[in-house]
Amino acid sequence: MGFEYLFHPKGIAVIGASNDPLKLGYEVFKNLKKYDGKVYPVNVKDETVQGVKAYRSVLDIPDEIDLAVVVVPKRFVKGTIEDCGKKGVKGAVIITAGFGETGEEGKKEERELVEIAHRYGMRLIGPNCVGVVNTKANMNATFITDPKKGDVAFISQSGALGAGIVYKTIKEGIGFSKFISVGNMADIDFAELMDYLADDDDDRAIALYIEGIKDGRRFIEVARRVTKKKPVIALKAGRSESGARAASSHTGSLAGSWKIYEAAFKQSGVLIADTIDDMLSMARAFTQPLPKGRRVAIMTNAGGPGVLTADAVDAKGLRLANLEEKTVEELRSFLPPMAAVKNPVDMIASARGEDYYRTAKLLLQDPNVDMLISICVVPTFAGMTPTEHAEGVIKAMKEVNNGKPVLAFFMAGYVSEKAKELLESNGVPTYERPEDVASAAYALVKFAEDKGLLEE
Amino acid sequence: MGFEYLFHPKGIAVIGASNDPLKLGYEVFKNLKKYDGKVYPVNVKDETVQGVKAYRSVLDIPDEIDLAVVVVPKRFVKGTIEDCGKKGVKGAVIITAGFGETGEEGKKEERELVEIAHRYGMRLIGPNCVGVVNTKANMNATFITDPKKGDVAFISQSGALGAGIVYKTIKEGIGFSKFISVGNMADIDFAELMDYLADDDDDRAIALYIEGIKDGRRFIEVARRVTKKKPVIALKAGRSESGARAASSHTGSLAGSWKIYEAAFKQSGVLIADTIDDMLSMARAFTQPLPKGRRVAIMTNAGGPGVLTADAVDAKGLRLANLEEKTVEELRSFLPPMAAVKNPVDMIASARGEDYYRTAKLLLQDPNVDMLISICVVPTFAGMTPTEHAEGVIKAMKEVNNGKPVLAFFMAGYVSEKAKELLESNGVPTYERPEDVASAAYALVKFAEDKGLLEE
Repeated sequence: MGFEYLFHPKGIAVIGASNDPLKLGYEVFKNLKKYDGKVYPVNVKDETVQGVKAYRSVLDIPDEIDLAVVVVPKRFVKGTIEDCGKKGVKGAVIITAGFGETGEEGKKEERELVEIAHRYGMRLIGPNCVGVVNTKANMNATFITDPKKGDVAFISQSGALGAGIVYKTIKEGIGFSKFISVGNMADIDFAELMDYLADDDDDRAIALYIEGIKDGRRFIEVARRVTKKKPVIALKAGRSESGARAASSHTGSLAGSWKIYEAAFKQSGVLIADTIDDMLSMARAFTQPLPKGRRVAIMTNAGGPGVLTADAVDAKGLRLANLEEKTVEELRSFLPPMAAVKNPVDMIASARGEDYYRTAKLLLQDPNVDMLISICVVPTFAGMTPTEHAEGVIKAMKEVNNGKPVLAFFMAGYVSEKAKELLESNGVPTYERPEDVASAAYALVKFAEDKGLLEE
Repeated sequence: MGFEYLFHPKGIAVIGASNDPLKLGYEVFKNLKKYDGKVYPVNVKDETVQGVKAYRSVLDIPDEIDLAVVVVPKRFVKGTIEDCGKKGVKGAVIITAGFGETGEEGKKEERELVEIAHRYGMRLIGPNCVGVVNTKANMNATFITDPKKGDVAFISQSGALGAGIVYKTIKEGIGFSKFISVGNMADIDFAELMDYLADDDDDRAIALYIEGIKDGRRFIEVARRVTKKKPVIALKAGRSESGARAASSHTGSLAGSWKIYEAAFKQSGVLIADTIDDMLSMARAFTQPLPKGRRVAIMTNAGGPGVLTADAVDAKGLRLANLEEKTVEELRSFLPPMAAVKNPVDMIASARGEDYYRTAKLLLQDPNVDMLISICVVPTFAGMTPTEHAEGVIKAMKEVNNGKPVLAFFMAGYVSEKAKELLESNGVPTYERPEDVASAAYALVKFAEDKGLLEE
């Protein structure tokens, strides 16, 4: 079941590697030159590809090849897979499109590819996909840009949507451990990948973008096992009737009724995301420990965002913690008279890093609090930057160190970027919208609940 | 009722203008130096402020002053307002805090300020606010950064949240015509501002962030009148019980039950936003004409985003248009065989600007289509940028020119920035998330419906 040959291959052959910048094989090879291991270009015409000695066939490569990335025109794919099998390649990522997604004839050709591969004990990703990325090994076997490094493994059934999400997350500073565009899933599918990722220390959570699953029973069976170890978050497209019809025409897979998927996800402990951002927000939460309950404390330097976050937390079925009288008194002792010392604690705009530190510490120490959300909007007093507020939260978290999760909602775009980086490098997932931080809190609570960890 | 003195004042006095970069009066005066009109610093100690001749009192200014921006310490506010009255100032924006939001005593002091002002026929914004911005006049009478220019007037009851949204929108390329932080609303409130903005050509829509409204009946009465002319979109914080409690402690206003607000908004034709992004997405839609029905056509170069958008459109109660047979045939004539020619039209990844142009044109011409959503994810073929796709849509829109609204969802972060700018400068609101473009479509339909413009 080990997919080491996919994510840490000993040697990679790029079949269809190109010197022509307008070809996908150009981008793929360019990306893979950064890989920690060995990469070999295969090109039927050119002696070298991008300055590297090229081979006419994968069979000509003198060294061991674990993984082949196939970007040749469709008519050459079958022969290429046959060659890969003979070479002893263990896995092939077929980027080339024009198979199962085109109709019955394409489905047949796709099945033939799988048969050839299996005859040689080889496994396939794709066809019709963007490729595979393992950021921890600097392996970008796709024709798109490098995702940022992170802790979430993201499997996408839509290559373009996956690519769009990669570009979007670069702008937003969100990272991935792996990005796997599974395309038509002719061979390797969600279930098998999840099973592997469950035991891979590089990934803290698994995010799935799903259009349609062929073997529902197997998905449920595997997901049930995987979610005992690691959170799985699914965004299912085609929840509406018109969406389902579109999804079915897109991937050729039966989208099926949302009710059936919903039941399957719930049965198997898969967390359901409503939007792309919801999926990312939930998946990113798991750098924090799991809470023992659903009582959330909110601290903020501005009332409005605190109120919106309280609303969002409530909408997710979590509760605002009732702070202990002792906590309230101690907060009152150093916060200004205009501050609100009930949950949400509004330290008001004058709050400095030291106030964040003291408040976070008191809230984390309160036995009625299971989890902390720290909010900061752009400090409005000249000379302040949100970095000191981030530092205050981190200091408190490290000192108290009692296993309660801390999430952050730092508003204000570019002003908060440094603070956000600081929080995230200390394992505090940081969001820019009330509903996103609430989704993250919900994901932690729900996963803890499913594991039987909630004490209530 | 004219608020010309607030948004196009003949002269502005910054009372408390400062040379000390750590004071708010420094930022306010620095910002206002860019104003199209005249600005005078008032400072009791310094001869000049930031290189400009300063006055010891507003009474010493030789010229006419329409607007005073007050950033003096709290104990000087009363005397300052008295002086402003004597000077014949028409409006004052009181940034200084420490009034109604602190309790009964503060409420009393606040009422005194209003009484003084009214005695002189002067009106007040604030106290306890961030200030007022009119981007069309380069007037930034706040201590925060300049918002981007746009068509939406945004009134915020939370200064910090408003500021956070301004910073956030700069990062996202979203603009405002006006930003009005109303603070405690001791005098001028939502209703009066809406009434003025309804007839102001600079603003296409009015967005409100509301924590609590004092005079609900008056709000409804005015909103009903305003929404006949211009869309009003409200984000109400404190919808949950815990949120309402927090809101009430924050602004001192009674938050009231969400059910009551919801009914009031619906009665008066105010569009309800669920999140900050929802509010912005809806408000930005109105650079497009209103649709005659709720039938949406979706075109895309990638299946996944098309499916998610179909889901989001459906969730908003809109419908996917059933394309005419003629449209389907013509699409089939030039799109590749793998394209989906039913709605959503998936032109697949190979689609170029020309395909966007031809497809958009056909969809806009289809009598079964009331509105078009054009989607583009990062084009995956080397040498393509989303700019040509944007150009195709714009060309089709201009040629067809039949009054059907066009919205865009261009995914992929920084890769799409140029395309987004191009679309927006041609009046096409462009979004980065399926739920946002769906909210925009919903806002157009709902506003048209409320005006009795839907033909079904």
